[in-house]
Amino acid sequence: MSSPLSFQTVARCKATDARVGLLSTPHGRVYTPAFLPVATRASVRGLTPEEATEVGASILLANTYHLYLQPGVDTVRAMGGLHAFMGWSGPMLTDSGGFQAFSMGSLKSVSEEGIRFRSHIDGSEHLFTPESAIGYQERLGADIILCLDECVAYGEEEARVREATERTHRWALRCREAQRSGKQALFGVLQGGVYRNLREESARFFTAQEVDGYAIGGLAVGEPKAEMYEVTRHVCAMLPEGRPRHLLGVGSPEDLVECVARGVDLFDCALPTRIARNGALLTGRGRIDITRARFQKAEGPVEEGCDCYACRNFSSAYLHHLFKAGELLGLRLATIHNLRFVLHLMEEMRHAILRDSFPAFKERFLARYRPTDERLRGEQKEKWLRRRGILGVGEGPGV
Amino acid sequence: MSSPLSFQTVARCKATDARVGLLSTPHGRVYTPAFLPVATRASVRGLTPEEATEVGASILLANTYHLYLQPGVDTVRAMGGLHAFMGWSGPMLTDSGGFQAFSMGSLKSVSEEGIRFRSHIDGSEHLFTPESAIGYQERLGADIILCLDECVAYGEEEARVREATERTHRWALRCREAQRSGKQALFGVLQGGVYRNLREESARFFTAQEVDGYAIGGLAVGEPKAEMYEVTRHVCAMLPEGRPRHLLGVGSPEDLVECVARGVDLFDCALPTRIARNGALLTGRGRIDITRARFQKAEGPVEEGCDCYACRNFSSAYLHHLFKAGELLGLRLATIHNLRFVLHLMEEMRHAILRDSFPAFKERFLARYRPTDERLRGEQKEKWLRRRGILGVGEGPGV
Repeated sequence: MSSPLSFQTVARCKATDARVGLLSTPHGRVYTPAFLPVATRASVRGLTPEEATEVGASILLANTYHLYLQPGVDTVRAMGGLHAFMGWSGPMLTDSGGFQAFSMGSLKSVSEEGIRFRSHIDGSEHLFTPESAIGYQERLGADIILCLDECVAYGEEEARVREATERTHRWALRCREAQRSGKQALFGVLQGGVYRNLREESARFFTAQEVDGYAIGGLAVGEPKAEMYEVTRHVCAMLPEGRPRHLLGVGSPEDLVECVARGVDLFDCALPTRIARNGALLTGRGRIDITRARFQKAEGPVEEGCDCYACRNFSSAYLHHLFKAGELLGLRLATIHNLRFVLHLMEEMRHAILRDSFPAFKERFLARYRPTDERLRGEQKEKWLRRRGILGVGEGPGV
Repeated sequence: MSSPLSFQTVARCKATDARVGLLSTPHGRVYTPAFLPVATRASVRGLTPEEATEVGASILLANTYHLYLQPGVDTVRAMGGLHAFMGWSGPMLTDSGGFQAFSMGSLKSVSEEGIRFRSHIDGSEHLFTPESAIGYQERLGADIILCLDECVAYGEEEARVREATERTHRWALRCREAQRSGKQALFGVLQGGVYRNLREESARFFTAQEVDGYAIGGLAVGEPKAEMYEVTRHVCAMLPEGRPRHLLGVGSPEDLVECVARGVDLFDCALPTRIARNGALLTGRGRIDITRARFQKAEGPVEEGCDCYACRNFSSAYLHHLFKAGELLGLRLATIHNLRFVLHLMEEMRHAILRDSFPAFKERFLARYRPTDERLRGEQKEKWLRRRGILGVGEGPGV
């Protein structure tokens, strides 16, 4: 089967593993490194497709788990597929639903057959198998689809991670087998936790398969950042040059810069849109909390020089007011600003790599950008994982 | 003082009291009959100023009560006034805050001095006097401002309504006296409940004053529709031709048509945007509930032929999904559709009056449009008024 995807490297950084690539899909081209805004339930968090284009999105990610539960994959198919349903004519990627079955629903059990979980909406029981995960994604109709994988939390023992990694490999073979249409590119999902030997095995396994690209799973699930960066570097170094690499669920500005430097081409993350809803806005110096009293009469935009719709048209004081008053427009403007910030950062990185000045750009960006405190972040992440049942009582990195 | 407003009648219906007028304000012109979308807290319910223009809005209304509490009139003034603050360059009107002090806050007392109320946000105590209501509106800086009035609920005895009407007249004189800037047009607010003699007195009083237009208050507060229409007709007939008439708080499609026929030029109402948030969408045949199962796979737009952004771009099935999934974009699309429906209806009425075919248009529209059941509406309205403390236990039309 010839791939519906083509990927070529356009430029390489001499000092780091950063690279610029051109990904061609049936719905158009994507310059990498690229960030995929999440259109979880076939909508980019309050934005229209035109607005997603305006902030600079060239490819979107939608979640199979959510769309399977609501409105159902058959409804999306009946409406002409995801692109027609949501009015997005550019490239799209769907995940397999596996990660959400862990993180959103109440996970019941993982067996060789698949992942059994309860719906977070009505508690009903469901099963994702490698075959059904592919079938659902074929009905949704994205350009790129993912193999079903088993994700384990940080802190699990090697034997447990090995079990999940090897199952993920067996499932990948079943996924490939289950594919009926040649119009969608299939990405393998690499596992292996923070264990180098398992990561190597997973990279070797998928490199030997006929997959169109590689998604790196099982990271950003509670491990320290330094470890996440190191595993990312290690995995990318083992993957062939000619296919795209997608680091799943990573998207804070500093992580994007660090992981582009380590050879990642594609990213997706709910973070920019999720924090926007709480009034956390991204700037070159770090996050600001627009609800703070100091913005009450702040005449300037959220960030001087930002070309987003919110910064071009409104004062920080107005955004502050909209959040205080609970006005929907506040969420929209914050979402637009944060997505534009991240997508503009990707543009800047592509340009820096093309001009062979990526290391200097990286240094300048990281010197100025103050990340959210890692300890606090770790605690928030753990709370999040625990609330969603990924970590049980007495489990996890903070215990 | 010469008026900052001019109003001229462009065409009159031969069979009804409907008329087309041209209202000129310091921020631009408005063809009447016109509907003012409510930008309660300096934002049209999730829409940008450009979207408000795109749905056909030419003038907006903002609420002094809400802006006084959050972000505060001094903040708005410091940010250059309402227009600059919210990025709307067209005409605007602010109400006096009196009605919201009744309906939103917990009304404490009305005395000759003014209206004492508790904030619905933090319970703090505040006083609106005729003088402060004007001062606040001057700091907000709308093109048209309103006199402070005392509104009473339907079902009150004549003596009580007379008291409120006469106090409203005394307050109007204090409002005129308090005006410092000649740049804003001042509308009187007529009261008198459903009592013809009191309505006549109020019309006579305001006709004798130097006001730039007439707002009709104290209607749509629980009285039967037939009574509301009759009072509206009666009041309009007593007002001079050369000044605009604004019916406060009225805005269901059938009411707009009926009241244009009775001589009203301006309307405002939260209804189109409020019901949109519950998935109630306006169509030529009446409201539909987009969350109903029958829209799950409905391929067509909400209304065939509608030129709004939502109907031009998305299926009913997609809107259904967005509401089911709780996606913000659903609220936006519904708000856009409902505002476009109402603003397009105003356009159609203006064109019909200009072509001298308004009676036929009215008949055709009302024959097709199925209003929400009046009994149900009355009950909803009463519940709403009661919840906000306008009606006490054992009071009101339903008792």
